[in-house]
Amino acid sequence: MRKFMDKDFLLKNKTAKKLYHGIAEKTPIIDYHCHLNPREIAEDKHYSSITEVWLGGDHYKWRIMRGFGVDERYITGDATDKEKFMKWAEVMPYCVGNPLYHWTHLELRRYFGINDLLCPENAERIWEKCNELLKKPEFGARGLIRRSNVELIGTTDDPCDDLAYHEIIEKDESFDVRVVPSYRPERALNIWRPEFCGYIKKLSAVVGYEINTYSELVRALDERLDFFVARGCKSADHSLNMVKFCEPDEACADAVFRAKLEGRKLTAEQIDVFYSTLFVHLAKRYYEHKLVMQLHIAVLRDNNTAAFEKLGVDMGFDTMSDVSVVEPVISLLDMLEREDKLPKTVLYSLNPAHNEALMALATCFNGHGIAGKIQIGSAWWLNDHIDGMEKHMKACASMTLFSKFIGMLTDSRSFLSYTRHEYFRRIVCSIIGTWAENGEAPNDMELLGRMVRDICYTNTKEYFFG
Amino acid sequence: MRKFMDKDFLLKNKTAKKLYHGIAEKTPIIDYHCHLNPREIAEDKHYSSITEVWLGGDHYKWRIMRGFGVDERYITGDATDKEKFMKWAEVMPYCVGNPLYHWTHLELRRYFGINDLLCPENAERIWEKCNELLKKPEFGARGLIRRSNVELIGTTDDPCDDLAYHEIIEKDESFDVRVVPSYRPERALNIWRPEFCGYIKKLSAVVGYEINTYSELVRALDERLDFFVARGCKSADHSLNMVKFCEPDEACADAVFRAKLEGRKLTAEQIDVFYSTLFVHLAKRYYEHKLVMQLHIAVLRDNNTAAFEKLGVDMGFDTMSDVSVVEPVISLLDMLEREDKLPKTVLYSLNPAHNEALMALATCFNGHGIAGKIQIGSAWWLNDHIDGMEKHMKACASMTLFSKFIGMLTDSRSFLSYTRHEYFRRIVCSIIGTWAENGEAPNDMELLGRMVRDICYTNTKEYFFG
Amino acid sequence: MRKFMDKDFLLKNKTAKKLYHGIAEKTPIIDYHCHLNPREIAEDKHYSSITEVWLGGDHYKWRIMRGFGVDERYITGDATDKEKFMKWAEVMPYCVGNPLYHWTHLELRRYFGINDLLCPENAERIWEKCNELLKKPEFGARGLIRRSNVELIGTTDDPCDDLAYHEIIEKDESFDVRVVPSYRPERALNIWRPEFCGYIKKLSAVVGYEINTYSELVRALDERLDFFVARGCKSADHSLNMVKFCEPDEACADAVFRAKLEGRKLTAEQIDVFYSTLFVHLAKRYYEHKLVMQLHIAVLRDNNTAAFEKLGVDMGFDTMSDVSVVEPVISLLDMLEREDKLPKTVLYSLNPAHNEALMALATCFNGHGIAGKIQIGSAWWLNDHIDGMEKHMKACASMTLFSKFIGMLTDSRSFLSYTRHEYFRRIVCSIIGTWAENGEAPNDMELLGRMVRDICYTNTKEYFFG
Repeated sequence: MRKFMDKDFLLKNKTAKKLYHGIAEKTPIIDYHCHLNPREIAEDKHYSSITEVWLGGDHYKWRIMRGFGVDERYITGDATDKEKFMKWAEVMPYCVGNPLYHWTHLELRRYFGINDLLCPENAERIWEKCNELLKKPEFGARGLIRRSNVELIGTTDDPCDDLAYHEIIEKDESFDVRVVPSYRPERALNIWRPEFCGYIKKLSAVVGYEINTYSELVRALDERLDFFVARGCKSADHSLNMVKFCEPDEACADAVFRAKLEGRKLTAEQIDVFYSTLFVHLAKRYYEHKLVMQLHIAVLRDNNTAAFEKLGVDMGFDTMSDVSVVEPVISLLDMLEREDKLPKTVLYSLNPAHNEALMALATCFNGHGIAGKIQIGSAWWLNDHIDGMEKHMKACASMTLFSKFIGMLTDSRSFLSYTRHEYFRRIVCSIIGTWAENGEAPNDMELLGRMVRDICYTNTKEYFFG
Repeated sequence: MRKFMDKDFLLKNKTAKKLYHGIAEKTPIIDYHCHLNPREIAEDKHYSSITEVWLGGDHYKWRIMRGFGVDERYITGDATDKEKFMKWAEVMPYCVGNPLYHWTHLELRRYFGINDLLCPENAERIWEKCNELLKKPEFGARGLIRRSNVELIGTTDDPCDDLAYHEIIEKDESFDVRVVPSYRPERALNIWRPEFCGYIKKLSAVVGYEINTYSELVRALDERLDFFVARGCKSADHSLNMVKFCEPDEACADAVFRAKLEGRKLTAEQIDVFYSTLFVHLAKRYYEHKLVMQLHIAVLRDNNTAAFEKLGVDMGFDTMSDVSVVEPVISLLDMLEREDKLPKTVLYSLNPAHNEALMALATCFNGHGIAGKIQIGSAWWLNDHIDGMEKHMKACASMTLFSKFIGMLTDSRSFLSYTRHEYFRRIVCSIIGTWAENGEAPNDMELLGRMVRDICYTNTKEYFFG
Repeated sequence: MRKFMDKDFLLKNKTAKKLYHGIAEKTPIIDYHCHLNPREIAEDKHYSSITEVWLGGDHYKWRIMRGFGVDERYITGDATDKEKFMKWAEVMPYCVGNPLYHWTHLELRRYFGINDLLCPENAERIWEKCNELLKKPEFGARGLIRRSNVELIGTTDDPCDDLAYHEIIEKDESFDVRVVPSYRPERALNIWRPEFCGYIKKLSAVVGYEINTYSELVRALDERLDFFVARGCKSADHSLNMVKFCEPDEACADAVFRAKLEGRKLTAEQIDVFYSTLFVHLAKRYYEHKLVMQLHIAVLRDNNTAAFEKLGVDMGFDTMSDVSVVEPVISLLDMLEREDKLPKTVLYSLNPAHNEALMALATCFNGHGIAGKIQIGSAWWLNDHIDGMEKHMKACASMTLFSKFIGMLTDSRSFLSYTRHEYFRRIVCSIIGTWAENGEAPNDMELLGRMVRDICYTNTKEYFFG
């Protein structure tokens, strides 16, 4: 019987412990893809309460609270911060088995030094202790980052963003964590969305000229990309919404774009050709700039219309799709490869049923002297629990070079989520340690240690910044 | 080396054993969804032989016998009961690894006190011992139920059913197990089936008026639902045959219904609109009556036409579908949620590849103050083996509140199947016990014990009858 | 801590060890489906270097090398054999976790007696030792086969093949391993391929008459099948490229065939009817000849067009499909079963997400006195690693009669791949041994030993040659 979440948490054997405590634990974090707000880093934001920093934007917790039957008032509504915290404490004991039970307690331990298990009986005390600590200077956004041994943060940014906060952070010599932008031009691609035309106007204002044609749109996006690259951007990020890639056709794309601006309704075919043409254009640009292209697939958003109308986007009502993804993804990658312009690509599917199929697909587009060129991104969002990570990593190892896997990212909106890297690293060490203990890998600590360090750190560094 | 199926069968560690023997083992069974015949309970049916009660309607065993190459004569044909039993005994030693090897021996042990492993050598002796016991008064349907510590049985019933046997059972003070009906109006929905018009006539005879229009059909179904509810019905049950839900349209549905009654051939679109309109109507009624809506999806029935023509339905020739289910299910739930009429819903998919996608989907429609409102039903039918149950429960725990899971049902036609609850409970205790032993859950027997009891009993009680 | 790959490699407990060393290890191999070249066996081919026999045709290794960033020159290009070997040695230490790490070292140990772990430091020495051994008479194709305790090899052959090498081998009394052909008429079915008409001409030359009509095509294929059967063929082999099976229609198929020969472009419907009609015809012939029909599904070939144009087919750019397969496969099997002409069938899917659905499907078409009539073939190609095999076997055991599973095949182009049977057998013994040790199977070594022997050997023998 092990103690709950002791120092050897998730480490199944001696080799796993040696790998974790000897290597993984001490290795800095490169959190190459997240949704942190750079302004909060630039201003070293402090938090009024544990609720603000912990429950304020965390749709993982919201889902679970809804699953417990908590009234929306206490989740995203007008209850006080304290009431919300108390509700979360009430749900906690029922979370056994869910990663939130681990994350919650890892976060309380690593950031607040609280080793108790949160429950209604001790909630008041924990509420006060956390809030007291949050008042201290070292408990602002920057302090939380420093405490987590973070070396680099990759934010996710719209092409219209002026990256002013990134600049402030870079120039501030008192803070040596790099914060680099990622280019996410989603809103310029989603021509079927009602907010598309408004977005084009916004982009036009940023670049300082009218955008009335497809080629003007491309010019604007290219300029913004150049600007991002000059600011240290190493990666682009997309939610791959569409699945029927067709050959690019700029004349068609132009006609579709004009039609949209004129307020006409588009057909599915028109949307396809615009999306394909612009997407392929951007992907080639990423190749030329040596950026990594991150593609998030199999996501269905805002599935509960009633909740969407009340609460808006990103509130915990998204889910995984189960339609076929292999052929559409192949058609995109193949099109780029044919022109010798396929950038390094990370594919993330929200549906773990795609694990094996995507690992196999990746191996069809590797090559060109780049180790691990096509990556299947770490078990992500709804999958970053023990079971999801293990399945992802076993599929990765069975079908590709696990040694070249670029490892974990938080994808988070919270400054307390770095413990997920700890969670991930413990699982990595446990998997590799178990192979060695079982005689499935050589008991060569140099070999295995390098592998651990590569997956936790070096591969990411070389892949994005090498 | 453990002894085969000893008292700690499937219990991997001390905590698992404590949880099972201390709690799960003693907890009553609520078998909320099965296909038992209420007449057999009302009449306390006795069985002429072990073959009748054990092999008579069990398509699990039939499939396996066919897989062994047994002639159909010995499966569903005119061989004697004894010959059929002898054939089953011949197959048994080859079932190692299959749940039937466990179920068979659990049933022989728990009901007949037979600890031998069935094989051709001892088959004669076991045949005789079982048949002798079956002659005893306590070996009728009721005795078998009582012996299993069953508190409540949820049968599955057609709206035309007069529920007379349910009434007899309820009034019989010598039998204190509740037997409640579930409303399964499938035949009124399946307008594409040849037997549809005949069914409408039957329903018409039951309600006492002609059913010539959609609104008369709805009136009849509503009346029958009221009748069921008055008889204690707490749940409706559907096989979700269709996947393209469209907005309800009563005028269209009426036209389609009339066309069908006039013998005209329907298009796919006509079928869709009728099915969607009636389904949404019924679901809203379930909401108003506070019933649980059970939806069984991803089933392909009667796939072997030659066998179907010889033997008919439910003979072991059904299988799991692998088409997409997420978007159709979302469209149904979302439509109901938009009108604030989404009942508690249990989704069962026959294809375990849907586990994660359905768990995630469920969390998009939770809320409204109901704990675990949308459930993904226990690993079902072709999946209720160790591997299937473990996968279901791990996905459930990783993505939702396992603590609020409503647990096991038999879905069975046999009075000897209650041992499947034992099977399930041993696995539940083993999973939770393993978390504690590994330091992934607190070693707090009060917390874990309540969780076990909730999953095995309390959650079901509150969800259906609370 | 176990030593890496010691004699008990992958054997998790005492029962597993007893089963493996007592039974599986000594049992001969029936490699019923592979892509070995019969000419190389007939001529007892000797190899100029370890690169030729080991890396020459092995697209598994090529994929991994590309994933490491190795230049194509060292993979399939004009680098020397030694340079290629050295590159492989460089990749090797990074393959920990991948089956190639195990296969590579199993092959070095079993064939060359080399126990070192291949790496750049020892590559030179290993290169020399292997090449020295390969010069010995007993290191030709035949020697490698004999050393592997192979009893029978099933090659894969085009209907045009004269099977001359099979005849030579059969008549050669100095070599007592049976080498039997399999009938793979794929090129006569793939009417949409550009090479189709050329193939028909080739077939015409072989049979000695013009093939201008569908019935002439059928006659030719039937004659070739008769010829194959007379040469000991026990099995047909197909890559099931198409998914919409329709009712056979010979008149239509004839019209389509003539249209193709006249150079006209075919519609999808035309292709469907030709493919369905000819496929069903062939399948019935297999039934009549008591052949096993092997169907490989869910494969997407040549996905990287750029690589295909440079390198051609079978170069490591194929992958698994994720489209639905259940309904199309059912429609084919059902059509045959309705006419009582369904042959023994082995279904292999490249996508492991299909495991459960196919196992369930198989049980819908069993019967007719044949044990395990419909088989789901062993974890195949991209899935023949520990995780893939375990998942396949657990699904097989949970849903069918694992005792009747026909076990492993190499599907390989290399004479060094027989170690994959060893790999498979260790996993079989470990699974069964673990059941026994856990009390999930009786500790009856006679029962379990027979099961192991059946899965490794007897079932295959009876299924194909019984």
